Amino acid sequence: MDYVKPNQVVDSLAAAGVAKSRLSISNILIKAILAGVFLGYATTLAFSASVQTGLDIVGAVLFPAGFVMVLLLNLELVTGAFAVLPLSRFRKQITTTAVAYNLTWSFIGNLVGGIIYAALYVIYITHFGHVDESLIIQKVITVAESKTLDYKAYGMDGMSVVLVKALLCNFMVALGVVMNATSTSTIGKIAAMWLPIMIFFAQGFEHAVVNMFVIPAGMMLGADISMADWWIWNQIPVTVGNFISGCIFVGLALHVVSRNNKKKN
Amino acid sequence: MDYVKPNQVVDSLAAAGVAKSRLSISNILIKAILAGVFLGYATTLAFSASVQTGLDIVGAVLFPAGFVMVLLLNLELVTGAFAVLPLSRFRKQITTTAVAYNLTWSFIGNLVGGIIYAALYVIYITHFGHVDESLIIQKVITVAESKTLDYKAYGMDGMSVVLVKALLCNFMVALGVVMNATSTSTIGKIAAMWLPIMIFFAQGFEHAVVNMFVIPAGMMLGADISMADWWIWNQIPVTVGNFISGCIFVGLALHVVSRNNKKKN
Amino acid sequence: MDYVKPNQVVDSLAAAGVAKSRLSISNILIKAILAGVFLGYATTLAFSASVQTGLDIVGAVLFPAGFVMVLLLNLELVTGAFAVLPLSRFRKQITTTAVAYNLTWSFIGNLVGGIIYAALYVIYITHFGHVDESLIIQKVITVAESKTLDYKAYGMDGMSVVLVKALLCNFMVALGVVMNATSTSTIGKIAAMWLPIMIFFAQGFEHAVVNMFVIPAGMMLGADISMADWWIWNQIPVTVGNFISGCIFVGLALHVVSRNNKKKN
Amino acid sequence: MDYVKPNQVVDSLAAAGVAKSRLSISNILIKAILAGVFLGYATTLAFSASVQTGLDIVGAVLFPAGFVMVLLLNLELVTGAFAVLPLSRFRKQITTTAVAYNLTWSFIGNLVGGIIYAALYVIYITHFGHVDESLIIQKVITVAESKTLDYKAYGMDGMSVVLVKALLCNFMVALGVVMNATSTSTIGKIAAMWLPIMIFFAQGFEHAVVNMFVIPAGMMLGADISMADWWIWNQIPVTVGNFISGCIFVGLALHVVSRNNKKKN
Amino acid sequence: MDYVKPNQVVDSLAAAGVAKSRLSISNILIKAILAGVFLGYATTLAFSASVQTGLDIVGAVLFPAGFVMVLLLNLELVTGAFAVLPLSRFRKQITTTAVAYNLTWSFIGNLVGGIIYAALYVIYITHFGHVDESLIIQKVITVAESKTLDYKAYGMDGMSVVLVKALLCNFMVALGVVMNATSTSTIGKIAAMWLPIMIFFAQGFEHAVVNMFVIPAGMMLGADISMADWWIWNQIPVTVGNFISGCIFVGLALHVVSRNNKKKN
Repeated sequence: MDYVKPNQVVDSLAAAGVAKSRLSISNILIKAILAGVFLGYATTLAFSASVQTGLDIVGAVLFPAGFVMVLLLNLELVTGAFAVLPLSRFRKQITTTAVAYNLTWSFIGNLVGGIIYAALYVIYITHFGHVDESLIIQKVITVAESKTLDYKAYGMDGMSVVLVKALLCNFMVALGVVMNATSTSTIGKIAAMWLPIMIFFAQGFEHAVVNMFVIPAGMMLGADISMADWWIWNQIPVTVGNFISGCIFVGLALHVVSRNNKKKN
Repeated sequence: MDYVKPNQVVDSLAAAGVAKSRLSISNILIKAILAGVFLGYATTLAFSASVQTGLDIVGAVLFPAGFVMVLLLNLELVTGAFAVLPLSRFRKQITTTAVAYNLTWSFIGNLVGGIIYAALYVIYITHFGHVDESLIIQKVITVAESKTLDYKAYGMDGMSVVLVKALLCNFMVALGVVMNATSTSTIGKIAAMWLPIMIFFAQGFEHAVVNMFVIPAGMMLGADISMADWWIWNQIPVTVGNFISGCIFVGLALHVVSRNNKKKN
Repeated sequence: MDYVKPNQVVDSLAAAGVAKSRLSISNILIKAILAGVFLGYATTLAFSASVQTGLDIVGAVLFPAGFVMVLLLNLELVTGAFAVLPLSRFRKQITTTAVAYNLTWSFIGNLVGGIIYAALYVIYITHFGHVDESLIIQKVITVAESKTLDYKAYGMDGMSVVLVKALLCNFMVALGVVMNATSTSTIGKIAAMWLPIMIFFAQGFEHAVVNMFVIPAGMMLGADISMADWWIWNQIPVTVGNFISGCIFVGLALHVVSRNNKKKN
Repeated sequence: MDYVKPNQVVDSLAAAGVAKSRLSISNILIKAILAGVFLGYATTLAFSASVQTGLDIVGAVLFPAGFVMVLLLNLELVTGAFAVLPLSRFRKQITTTAVAYNLTWSFIGNLVGGIIYAALYVIYITHFGHVDESLIIQKVITVAESKTLDYKAYGMDGMSVVLVKALLCNFMVALGVVMNATSTSTIGKIAAMWLPIMIFFAQGFEHAVVNMFVIPAGMMLGADISMADWWIWNQIPVTVGNFISGCIFVGLALHVVSRNNKKKN
Repeated sequence: MDYVKPNQVVDSLAAAGVAKSRLSISNILIKAILAGVFLGYATTLAFSASVQTGLDIVGAVLFPAGFVMVLLLNLELVTGAFAVLPLSRFRKQITTTAVAYNLTWSFIGNLVGGIIYAALYVIYITHFGHVDESLIIQKVITVAESKTLDYKAYGMDGMSVVLVKALLCNFMVALGVVMNATSTSTIGKIAAMWLPIMIFFAQGFEHAVVNMFVIPAGMMLGADISMADWWIWNQIPVTVGNFISGCIFVGLALHVVSRNNKKKN
């Protein structure tokens, strides 16, 4: 049946990493822009649900819809790639340059996608600038500010907190990619991927690609965030934290465990 | 197993576009009328849920029921066709005339279906004209007016907003068609399609076919909307916006990505 | 995989109609009584959920449980047969007499089942006549009265409304039968059938078999409904309306579309 | 695919009845004790959900979790056996003695399981006797008393009511066993079984095995119920009612319908 | 199809036990640390849901997400191993030493994982020590104290209660491992495993691995719990209780039942 055993999961992830490293720049960009947009859609879905119900958990239960579509269509999400490409590298199937190549263009594509969706969504909710107060506008601004200014206010301690939240986040996001590979059935993939993504979103961890939408959107809506605030207090540390946990906690862990298994056989 | 890989998904969508271009007018009309009616049913289901719970998100979680039936039965939905037929065209499998042929008759059929359901539903909720006040009547009127008069009030800015909301909408609706093709299992299709449709409906984006029911229904119920309001401030720009995003963001994007993949092989 | 394409769905429905026309009277009766009882159970489940939560939509989300069991066990439900047997007739696979034969005995069986369940349920909720006031008793009486006296009060307009609600209802119920045939997997069948049944129940449309339980139950509980009220203002027009929409909107529509397809091949 | 047609469902149930009649006493006992314990767990899960939300329907939606595990592991539940073994008997595949043999030991095992779980659960919720007031304690006592004293108060009418509620209950429980056989897929079995079990629990019908936990638990917690109250006003009439509906409405009905089908072929 | 019959389930569990006994220490440790971390994530997910909704049952419905990932990836969870390894031992496929070997290292790994997640999570929710009051902080402290001091307050009676709650807990957790083996399909595994895990978490039973996160986390947040309180009044008795029920109620029960079946063949 469709269940895929762990060792085969690791093999298929390593193979996926190789395939990703061979995509053309234009393909990575298009697929990464789509992925960035999809996570934007999912984030605003979650915000709508949260605002209406007053319960963030409802938003978190629905959020994985966007992530699931990204992986069913095999688009390029840099945070997922943070686990997959290093795995292929640890197995010596690709070079470090190939890893950097995909990650760079995926990052750029995701960023472009997030900003495009932010611009369109802001036009919508502000009625092209005619409306500046609503629950959803307030929600976006509040989240964007809490994701930047709250860390800045605490200096290096804030930096540590954002890094820890990024570590905690991408362990789950990268696991979403792993879960996708545990089934060859669409419903199995959907159900399995849903779990870690719901877990991370429900707890407000820091995800680089979600932030590529939510912080620019907040800024467009008038949040008191400078470009430096965005990048220094969120985007850079979050990307670093996401990379570390994807690479080490998932990529390396899978590599070591599956290598040991191989030795035994 | 039933999961279909992205490249095969694109191939099957292109093939579906070819098949659609060869349907007889009567077949397109019957299938498009049914599709229009089904989305009408789904919309009033969502309204019932929203009115009872006071939470639009509940309606949005249930709304995809109608869309799913449309695609399981391979009916004709013009907004889905906005992505599928251009894709076949980009691949040079059909002519531009063939695209226009299907889109025209699908549009007409969907419109007829929406109006038929509107008429029947209005008979029901007004008790054949004996009742003119209820929560659900108020809901239909409010939604219909907000989908027309709200844009009109802002002139060209309103026109831009409705266009953006139509773009945002049909990206997801067309993705629903794509998601349908990611599985050869009924449960997989249902679950995958549910995601983008829930996303678009939850956020109040503008969908041409839903509006073919909800605005006429509002007008029949006495909403202060003229025929010109309906078409100029909603139906035409929404159809244009839906077409652009279906054609470009989904049809063209899939074409380019899959063509690149093909070249590599 | 388990997804069944539309043309095959129509073929299998037509074949099912032939099989239904060949059942013995005793088999139809037993299977129709069971079906009537199951819809009774599902209706009281929905009522319990509605009464407890104050939200009819919750009852509607749960109601399809009964319908699903009816179809998984291939029992005889006259409203479903309203689409399936005419389809076989349009294809000239069975005679009009055969259609009338199954429909007659299914109708009688469903009616007997509904009344039996009503009697047992009334014994339960009235504690054998010792209790005459409770939320659930009130709910059954209110629904039964609204399904008869409300139409009567408006004369011919009321008759038109009940007919329209019966048309709207059985389009969905017959689609439930169609959806059942879109999968050869149990979970696929359950999920697909759930959709149209939830849609019809959530909006209070008029279903002949549900009414065979709820109106007699209301009468047994002391609702102010005469036998004439039941049959003239509900059972007969609802059955007629259910038949028309099952026969025309589903049976004939499927026949025409699939015939056209065949011609092309 | 995994959907099993009704006639094969009946065949497989009859075969399961034969297998059950050949189990050793120790196997029946162990499997029946486990089943009794599992339904105890499910009942307290439902009570927790009901008490927290104030909605019994939420408990009912979750309750089938226990029943599903019993059937996935093919344990021995006497109320399910009330349909399956008579079916094998009607088909003359086993003797009446064999039926009585399994039913007797299953009943005893279920009873032991229910009482064991009651004892452990009471230790937990009373903190070994140090706590005698809590919402959950009150819930167990109230339910236990309503399941005995309420019937006793009405004499023979109460006896009729408990019998009717037992008839209504086991029609659904036995259908749960039938639903289990409609699929050879785990998810299909789970979804199909869930339906009738949710239906019976949501409406407070009387199930012999659930009562083997809840009434003893109530008594241990100080409910004003004598051993005679338990057995005369609940356990004996409920078991009789459960047996009649399992045996006649399900076992016999399936036998007759499938026999007729066979004759036709 | 993917449903696995009970006897094969037991065979596959016994085989899994043999495989577990042959893992290298480093593999057990990595896999056990991951498992400990995943249950930590799931616990804080549940806490978030409970705190927001005021309903612990909502948290319990979501909690199994973590457990499911542990088993889909075949990680090492000592409480699951409490059933699986003894089963292999009862079948004489492995030695008692091999049982102890896996259990020891799994226990250590789970403990390390729980503590690591506790440390990271505490950094997050306290904003690196700058925040010491929030609903979620209060929740963690309250749960940690109730899982230790509440038992201590009652002396030996408290010890009995904690032991009973540990017995009740691991019956369900070990069943989660059994349920995982009832399907070879990912969706089937997920759905089946969800049931017993939801049952145990919803009722506040005592699970050794969850406590390896929640009690240290509470202590880090300033709960009034000494190291002795943790180990004497919770970790040791809970581990013992979990072991007994996993080993006897599940491992031994499955062994005896399946052995009897084998004899018959």
